[in-house]
Amino acid sequence: MIPRAVVLLSGGLDSATTAAVARSQGFAVFALSVDYGQRHQVELERAAAVAHQLTVAEHRTVRMDLRAVGGSALTADIPVPKDVTNNDQTVPITYVPARNTILLGLALGYAEIVGAFDLFIGANVLDYSGYPDCRPAFLTAFENLANLATKAAIEGQGRYRIHAPLLQMTKAEIIREAVRLGVDLGLTLSCYDPDAAGRSCGHCDSCRLRRKGFAEAAIPDPTVYQTGVV
Amino acid sequence: MIPRAVVLLSGGLDSATTAAVARSQGFAVFALSVDYGQRHQVELERAAAVAHQLTVAEHRTVRMDLRAVGGSALTADIPVPKDVTNNDQTVPITYVPARNTILLGLALGYAEIVGAFDLFIGANVLDYSGYPDCRPAFLTAFENLANLATKAAIEGQGRYRIHAPLLQMTKAEIIREAVRLGVDLGLTLSCYDPDAAGRSCGHCDSCRLRRKGFAEAAIPDPTVYQTGVV
Repeated sequence: MIPRAVVLLSGGLDSATTAAVARSQGFAVFALSVDYGQRHQVELERAAAVAHQLTVAEHRTVRMDLRAVGGSALTADIPVPKDVTNNDQTVPITYVPARNTILLGLALGYAEIVGAFDLFIGANVLDYSGYPDCRPAFLTAFENLANLATKAAIEGQGRYRIHAPLLQMTKAEIIREAVRLGVDLGLTLSCYDPDAAGRSCGHCDSCRLRRKGFAEAAIPDPTVYQTGVV
Repeated sequence: MIPRAVVLLSGGLDSATTAAVARSQGFAVFALSVDYGQRHQVELERAAAVAHQLTVAEHRTVRMDLRAVGGSALTADIPVPKDVTNNDQTVPITYVPARNTILLGLALGYAEIVGAFDLFIGANVLDYSGYPDCRPAFLTAFENLANLATKAAIEGQGRYRIHAPLLQMTKAEIIREAVRLGVDLGLTLSCYDPDAAGRSCGHCDSCRLRRKGFAEAAIPDPTVYQTGVV
């Protein structure tokens, strides 16, 4: 049987590239998207489009209303910061408390059900140094937890591994890798504040990193921006 | 300020007692219930009733559709086993993959938002020896993860602690502790398969443990059972 991997797929550039990496390593990809009350449904539509383009084995979406506990510009009614550079290494307001702990927990449950032992996440330390749950020490701690938390692990069926293949890559390197692996980057959406048509704002932290990445990689940017964004 | 604690509250006997323990230790209780597609809404109603009886500071419910990933008698269309004793130490079919990892992840996010560093969970090793994510090693690994996963921890605002005050207690001891702390046990529901009116089946693993506990504690059982259950 082809080994299976669960890949957390948001529909953004990083998670799409991560799914393509998992596939290139010979895994059958079981993609998991989580609707945690994001501002726009368009993110989930992009995740489905990416999953289809990458011909994953299965794509599931878990709905979870994190707005019930609030606390982030991505889940509560707090404006997304625009044209602000987070140079002081503090945790940005777009940080969702315990987000990757929750997402990896869901991925772990899904992995146990489909018999996968490999979990892929698009975590990155360079562009998101302010997010504690993107750091190597966090990922190692989660791998340790996974091997204590599950029936499959304690019964000796296998050992869970957390893969973060983009961890040390720059955005330009990620874009080049995505192109090399055949990801249709025009399907991906990175913007924290897209409009209802899925067009990017061009000014949030995530848009700025993405635009800079395309420029540095010298690859034409296929992103559709809102009117007036230059 | 009174220190705050997040308590995972299902509406069952164990979590209600855990909330009462947290309160008795001087914490303002922030109760978190998770609707993960349980068979019956009545569980969540019981959680709300328990939260009200214990005068918690706040009670939030996160909806999350774990049925999308399936895999347990408690979330999928698999019959709940009746009158079966799980003596062979294998993981029971009512085990929900990665359940406590996901629940504690949500509790951690909620804790970070309300400024709590103490997380309470009603995990127990004696009655649920088959559940890997109720064991001390799992809880220790989650505590380690929590202190790497969050802004509050890495910024040095405090250190997260996972409390499982019932961990080594028998069901009879838990019932005596609940009574001592003034928990209205008639509000709690432990049954894996209650009817729409919230009456317990009396025959699932959880009902059997609970009935035995009341008998051993020599405390009258306030549980309302379905017609014909003796």
